[in-house]
Amino acid sequence: MAESTRIAVDAMGGDGGLAVILDGAARAAADRPDLSFLLVGDEAAIRAALESHPALGPRVEIVHAPETVGSDEKPSTAIRRARVTSMGLTIDAVKQGRAGAAVSAGNTGALMAMAKLSLRTIPGIDRPALAALLPSLGDNDTVMLDLGANTECDARNLVQFAVMGAAYARTALDLDRPRVALLNIGTEDLKGTDIIRDAAQRLRSASHLPMAFTGFIEGDRLSRGQVDVIACDGFSGNIALKTAEGTARFVADLLRRAFSSSIRSKIGFLISRPATQLLRDHLDPNNHNGAIFLGLNGLVVKSHGGANAIGIANALKLAAKLVDDDLTRRIGEDLGNIEARAA
Amino acid sequence: MAESTRIAVDAMGGDGGLAVILDGAARAAADRPDLSFLLVGDEAAIRAALESHPALGPRVEIVHAPETVGSDEKPSTAIRRARVTSMGLTIDAVKQGRAGAAVSAGNTGALMAMAKLSLRTIPGIDRPALAALLPSLGDNDTVMLDLGANTECDARNLVQFAVMGAAYARTALDLDRPRVALLNIGTEDLKGTDIIRDAAQRLRSASHLPMAFTGFIEGDRLSRGQVDVIACDGFSGNIALKTAEGTARFVADLLRRAFSSSIRSKIGFLISRPATQLLRDHLDPNNHNGAIFLGLNGLVVKSHGGANAIGIANALKLAAKLVDDDLTRRIGEDLGNIEARAA
Repeated sequence: MAESTRIAVDAMGGDGGLAVILDGAARAAADRPDLSFLLVGDEAAIRAALESHPALGPRVEIVHAPETVGSDEKPSTAIRRARVTSMGLTIDAVKQGRAGAAVSAGNTGALMAMAKLSLRTIPGIDRPALAALLPSLGDNDTVMLDLGANTECDARNLVQFAVMGAAYARTALDLDRPRVALLNIGTEDLKGTDIIRDAAQRLRSASHLPMAFTGFIEGDRLSRGQVDVIACDGFSGNIALKTAEGTARFVADLLRRAFSSSIRSKIGFLISRPATQLLRDHLDPNNHNGAIFLGLNGLVVKSHGGANAIGIANALKLAAKLVDDDLTRRIGEDLGNIEARAA
Repeated sequence: MAESTRIAVDAMGGDGGLAVILDGAARAAADRPDLSFLLVGDEAAIRAALESHPALGPRVEIVHAPETVGSDEKPSTAIRRARVTSMGLTIDAVKQGRAGAAVSAGNTGALMAMAKLSLRTIPGIDRPALAALLPSLGDNDTVMLDLGANTECDARNLVQFAVMGAAYARTALDLDRPRVALLNIGTEDLKGTDIIRDAAQRLRSASHLPMAFTGFIEGDRLSRGQVDVIACDGFSGNIALKTAEGTARFVADLLRRAFSSSIRSKIGFLISRPATQLLRDHLDPNNHNGAIFLGLNGLVVKSHGGANAIGIANALKLAAKLVDDDLTRRIGEDLGNIEARAA
């Protein structure tokens, strides 16, 4: 690739601070020699931190932002400071065309509100949806959306989520024709609410789009790798995602408790450590990092707040991939196709 | 206890069939010498199977039922055969006052429909709620309801679920003042739908009831043991419960894959087997068996279809405990108290 792919990075967002963000950027830069960054935040602090990353220097431009968004700050307050905060100016760089995508590990609600206000939604989309990648037993991760941006949805919203999720899966997971399902409390046609049944009906007739609608999926099959995209309203999606995270942690806690219950089991644990390490890697959120707001006129990727340098690098590489594949255009085309068919 | 506590048992329901049901009854009878059973099903088959359980014989009465409800049978079809099926006649025994509670491991939808039609709901309750016990990191299991009986709920429904769940927790978990929370996508007062916020408002003013409302709980904290009762609509409850089950299985599958990835890890697994066995016991659904339909004029306990004899015994003992504590009366009183306050 002759031209450089440039990502705007909120250098001040996230629990690990500037040091972790720069470590992550350096890792991503090493993997992708065509990447360059617009680092947004306190200029003096960034310059000082860059001294530990001499290889990064030539590929970085700094945008000074005097303030940061607090991790507990209300979106309504954050919005008013968009022009002086690292998060606001990171998004603005995408709006101004200075970067192909924005990446922040900061306050999710504030990021969503600012991104929506600044970039606006694609025509026909009321509110952007938040999509993330979940680990699965299959060959690839599973895209799930919406994860909390839209607590109440109608059938048209759910169809749009499915279409946007499929476009995202084609890019992020390199799939030609992602398998798409609606989250429901049973797999029979009659299960669930009128809204979900209506959405299923509409998706069944969307066979002209590059996706395969497979019907309903229940909560106990989310991680089986049987579908590539799971669409749902933001309320159930948030409940499902957090329940999955909480249960994985719960089982890990029980396992830790079990392994430390006797000398014998402690020895067994030490011997089988490479195996449990494999498990840990598979479940590590850093290896699935990068949620994305879909439906905006521009790419905004949200990193886990607690991501380490590997996690940040993954979020940056994901953003770069979405820029290269022109995800925003793809989504617009697919949405146009399904609306045209419905009309 | 001078008087016997009698449980009606659908002897034909469940994946394990009659043999597992009778093994379970024998185990429960050994633990509780005051228990007796009304076994409902094919009389000849039950008599033959009872020969392996001589101790059970004197404590059993058989009610012949010529037919059974299929595991995939639609509730609407099952209802029409209530007078000839083991499930229908098990519920009828409670209605006729011949048993204090009904237990079945059969088709959940059919059991719900039949129980509602036969026993009717407590005044003021539109539809019964399905409650189950989830394993937790705390000292006791956590009650969660509704788990799929009511896909759409208003604020009054959610309040009733909370009140019924608290009465259930007082009995099933031996708690004086259970901590109750509403499932939501955030813990701040403004999070979630209008319905959930309205329900929270009503529960905050219910301090005269024997329960402590603690506000909202998110999906990632369901298993932490921080609350005793989690109330939610049947859609999110079903999604959360199944996601938790699926994720626990997913982590176990990954663990199995990890442990069998090398000779070394296989050896480590063998050495630490007692530890992983502890974990398995803690998560084994048989050790948390017995979901219950709350809000009916009578007790109906649903066992997991795949329960083993220990699971069946746990469901039977749970049913007996609820009979002894007169759960139905308790729920009626608490609902009366909260309605009176609201009026």
